[in-house]
Amino acid sequence: MSDDSATGHGAPRTVVVKVGGSLVSDKRSDHDIDEAAVLDYARLVADLARSYPGRVVLVAGGGALGHGAVRRKEHDGRLALLPLTRATFAVKWVWTEAFRAVGLPAVPLQAMAMYAEGGDGPMFQTGVVSRLLGTGVLPVLSGDCVLTADGDLRILGSDHVPGILLDGSFGPVRVVALTDVPGIHTGRTGDSPVVPYLDAADPSRAYAYLWPTAAWDTSGAMRGKVDAFVAHAARGAECVIARGDRKAASLRHLMAPMADWPKDLPRTVISRSRPA
Amino acid sequence: MSDDSATGHGAPRTVVVKVGGSLVSDKRSDHDIDEAAVLDYARLVADLARSYPGRVVLVAGGGALGHGAVRRKEHDGRLALLPLTRATFAVKWVWTEAFRAVGLPAVPLQAMAMYAEGGDGPMFQTGVVSRLLGTGVLPVLSGDCVLTADGDLRILGSDHVPGILLDGSFGPVRVVALTDVPGIHTGRTGDSPVVPYLDAADPSRAYAYLWPTAAWDTSGAMRGKVDAFVAHAARGAECVIARGDRKAASLRHLMAPMADWPKDLPRTVISRSRPA
Repeated sequence: MSDDSATGHGAPRTVVVKVGGSLVSDKRSDHDIDEAAVLDYARLVADLARSYPGRVVLVAGGGALGHGAVRRKEHDGRLALLPLTRATFAVKWVWTEAFRAVGLPAVPLQAMAMYAEGGDGPMFQTGVVSRLLGTGVLPVLSGDCVLTADGDLRILGSDHVPGILLDGSFGPVRVVALTDVPGIHTGRTGDSPVVPYLDAADPSRAYAYLWPTAAWDTSGAMRGKVDAFVAHAARGAECVIARGDRKAASLRHLMAPMADWPKDLPRTVISRSRPA
Repeated sequence: MSDDSATGHGAPRTVVVKVGGSLVSDKRSDHDIDEAAVLDYARLVADLARSYPGRVVLVAGGGALGHGAVRRKEHDGRLALLPLTRATFAVKWVWTEAFRAVGLPAVPLQAMAMYAEGGDGPMFQTGVVSRLLGTGVLPVLSGDCVLTADGDLRILGSDHVPGILLDGSFGPVRVVALTDVPGIHTGRTGDSPVVPYLDAADPSRAYAYLWPTAAWDTSGAMRGKVDAFVAHAARGAECVIARGDRKAASLRHLMAPMADWPKDLPRTVISRSRPA
């Protein structure tokens, strides 16, 4: 009934790895970024990108720097959110330097320059992402502020950024969020099992499970992530939420069909069809 | 014989104002940017953009920060030039803050995210520039490093950046470089008259006039500017080199037909046809 090449579960063409800010920073601080943690994750993502040249994109969670820029709101008026593009550029640069340290060519790209909304609908101009991938360079994206149809800016959180890549030549796309939980818990405690699969056409079941959002998390924590991933899945992406482990042996399973993932690795898959 | 709407000299649709780094910094230093000078020019450009909403784009010269990033070359390998995108982002941010200070909405955009070269030729994706202009926001561009067909990076100097805007819906485009000389001098001293008009189809005459390039100027000084502007003119732009004056009363003549420019204002026009 479902077409594997569109709904996923086979090996994807492109994996968009989103490393949650919570893994590399303390969101309750405005400036901390844990460069040693970034380096560990960069090493893992670099290994994945070297194993599958031209098929990996990184999205760096904003973490403390991004959240700080939004909280401070030193700007006002219609472009009040603009400092977010500067803050997340700094985050991307930390990642870019980490990739350089581990020998992987990587380039930071400003999402705001490639995406905008408007009366005619959203506009995606991701040709540079394609060309970077075509020459074996890892594109480093992040959350950003983006232009709306009204001429204001709004936050495009890092969980939403993979959506920029769903109208181009990147598919089938798998979006993997590495975060500080192993998926969507079925209970209110961290030792409860996670929901293995969430049907993007009927996400209501998942929302019942969601933990309350912490007030300090401008991205809306897991609720926001599920909203974003349900939207990506509706556009054909296969989305996975899993716990990040900076000391993991490898991330190469991120490119494997879901059936070949380690059996003992908890995760929540959000897509339009149940994995085999 | 010539079509005014293509070759210029009438009022342009879009004016790309490039403020030379030499006007706001000391290129021989790695870090200096004269924020008071930036503020003065921002005030002038803001007045122009308010007078002609949606028709003005700023290109910030890299100046000391950009030249420093290129000179230091702390990176090596195929992406050795990458620090330029960080350095020129910082330059754009200084300008963005200056525009905020004078009350004009402005947004910095990374040229590398909108332009790349490749086997199929150069790719221009400037939809965000169009949408910003459509909502009355000033796009702030700058020189950058850009991806080449070989997968390396090369410098796209700020004089070349207006070329990104010549394949879109921005024309007729006038490119105005405000710099520290009043045009292309006919002699080797600063008190010699300037060449009023340079035919883009036959630029050889101008090259005979050009001053030797200072070794500290990675952009090749006036020679590089003429190369860039001859190329823009060949693609239909009307290009003007004039002296910047941070205390000028106005820049509104930049949007006027050339025939209406102040008679006593020296400038060199580079285009495909002689101004009336």
